[in-house]
Amino acid sequence: MDLTATPTPSLLLDRDRLERNVSAMQARMDASGIGLRPHLKTAKSIDVARLAIQKGAHGVTVSTLKEARYFFDNGVKDILYAVGIVAGKLPEAAALIERGCDLKVVTDNVDTAKAIAATETPIRCLIEVDTGGARAGIQAEGPELLDIGKTLGARLAGVMTHAGHSYGTADIAEIKRIAEDERAGAVRAAERLRAAGLSCDIVSAGSTPTAIHGENRTGLTEFRPGVYVFQDLFQVAINSSARDDLALSVLASVIGHNKTAGTILLDAGGLALSKDSGANGHRPGVGYGEVCAPETLTHHAGLFVADVHQEHGIVPITSEDDYTRLPIGAKVRILPNHACMTAAAYEDYIVLQADQPPTRWGRINGW
Amino acid sequence: MDLTATPTPSLLLDRDRLERNVSAMQARMDASGIGLRPHLKTAKSIDVARLAIQKGAHGVTVSTLKEARYFFDNGVKDILYAVGIVAGKLPEAAALIERGCDLKVVTDNVDTAKAIAATETPIRCLIEVDTGGARAGIQAEGPELLDIGKTLGARLAGVMTHAGHSYGTADIAEIKRIAEDERAGAVRAAERLRAAGLSCDIVSAGSTPTAIHGENRTGLTEFRPGVYVFQDLFQVAINSSARDDLALSVLASVIGHNKTAGTILLDAGGLALSKDSGANGHRPGVGYGEVCAPETLTHHAGLFVADVHQEHGIVPITSEDDYTRLPIGAKVRILPNHACMTAAAYEDYIVLQADQPPTRWGRINGW
Repeated sequence: MDLTATPTPSLLLDRDRLERNVSAMQARMDASGIGLRPHLKTAKSIDVARLAIQKGAHGVTVSTLKEARYFFDNGVKDILYAVGIVAGKLPEAAALIERGCDLKVVTDNVDTAKAIAATETPIRCLIEVDTGGARAGIQAEGPELLDIGKTLGARLAGVMTHAGHSYGTADIAEIKRIAEDERAGAVRAAERLRAAGLSCDIVSAGSTPTAIHGENRTGLTEFRPGVYVFQDLFQVAINSSARDDLALSVLASVIGHNKTAGTILLDAGGLALSKDSGANGHRPGVGYGEVCAPETLTHHAGLFVADVHQEHGIVPITSEDDYTRLPIGAKVRILPNHACMTAAAYEDYIVLQADQPPTRWGRINGW
Repeated sequence: MDLTATPTPSLLLDRDRLERNVSAMQARMDASGIGLRPHLKTAKSIDVARLAIQKGAHGVTVSTLKEARYFFDNGVKDILYAVGIVAGKLPEAAALIERGCDLKVVTDNVDTAKAIAATETPIRCLIEVDTGGARAGIQAEGPELLDIGKTLGARLAGVMTHAGHSYGTADIAEIKRIAEDERAGAVRAAERLRAAGLSCDIVSAGSTPTAIHGENRTGLTEFRPGVYVFQDLFQVAINSSARDDLALSVLASVIGHNKTAGTILLDAGGLALSKDSGANGHRPGVGYGEVCAPETLTHHAGLFVADVHQEHGIVPITSEDDYTRLPIGAKVRILPNHACMTAAAYEDYIVLQADQPPTRWGRINGW
């Protein structure tokens, strides 16, 4: 792969690795007998959505209504907007449904459920359940569940949960326990709603770690992992990805040698890599990313982006030889901590595939 | 200011505060008898550039060549690209100069200086000097200075430095010392070049803290602060801004109450606010921003965005009353940690001014 003429910083996507990740996740869900509704907050790209759907995904998940519009305008019909909606956003959701989009929204409170139940255009809604992540959602055993279900009435489409706390441990046995909590909580909420005479077609759960390590998906109808399409150093750090699965990287140039400070400077800083340093909690020293050879993605041993300023990445050297192996003007590829955050700074991906010229895939950023 | 119909999350810019910040900095530089070349990596907006130029700025500073193109295409001629250039980017710089842009570039090494000296289109270049920030630049007293100067020859336009380490302390006496190091280093480098028979028209320094607190600017020709146009909680934390100067905020909606966890959820998370948590080093507990009343920007006492997920901001409550004062659907404005990083997620600003309808100003993101 000749990257000599590719400008820096650029966001590179390895298509073969992407396709392998997408196929492996589909196979995992097929084996469990449930659907896959990838969370496209990571990729924000219709090309990635099409690949996932081609491999078997029955719908998609989005994190903004702007994404919902974009995917629907590009032919995707079955869309779950998985961030709790508020009344002020319902007209935007209704407008999409009126145009034929099978959009479903999410709530965890009676006030919003009332607003949803009252819209002229019927809006289908899932109830968000907290299965330990302690972000959004009500307790599966709590009284609010049935109140919200009854308020939604015929507009109740199901329940959903996200075990975000699966990102908090690298212990696979613990991730398996979290996956079971996630599953059991969603299924229990569905059972309670059904026992109260309410319909609950969709029982949706998922995160990448619980998708990778969970063993029992009984009672779920679908899973919603997101970052698995690209993977990243964080997922490697918590044992939910192999390093060779990492499909996303940032191409950067060496723009300076600060021999007094003992550092190599790159033109990829806090904007090009993001300021997410999450992987360090599980893998201290990884900084803002691994500095790799551009053609092979082999790690330049010992070299990490230790600090970032807006447009500068700072790489401490391990020996004076690093100045020789990475002369000014040399290119490197950086494997990032958190693919979702890194990709968000770019308008598009440069998509690399063996024996093919690079192509560009667009992204839908913002709100 | 009625923000009821404004979508969330949105990036709000208070025009009166912006204008006050711009005027105050211009007055400061006028009093020092040197020029102001604002670093537009913060605002990335032609409207902000025009305001600064109208108040007296003689040129602008940019952090990407994309910004340079954008500002030149919108009528700004005198532009300094203040991130070390590499040979591969010289054709892009030359193309702008051929179109009439008075673009100046920056280097700190002989290899790049040779490439600059060899371009067909003459490219003017400043030598970057490290005055303690230990990011890019050579030492003012080091041997490389004259080597680079001689290599550039007639293309040498001056010297520049940035005391980035002024962000590392809230001690005003220490910031004053750093400001003097920044000034003295740049001036010393210029003197050495001139003593060697080289011309050195531009002697450029600057950061917001050293602009605010520096007392002596003798020998400098210009200053390049950036974030002062908007200011942010980080600058407040290091005593380089008053809270009432903060011109940038994020409008968000309350999307949930997690009464089990004791949190209020906002629809502004790691993308809408950025993951920059820098202010906490000087002001522990500020998290990802202060939660304020939307109309007045009064802080909802005790409420901070303590954690962010991609599209969720998590605000721990101080008492159960917080659920009443911030019901689901309520709007808040969040004062961010680091204006440069927060603004980068948005395509445009919603510009608020007393007794005027809001307008939109665009931004130039990416590379």
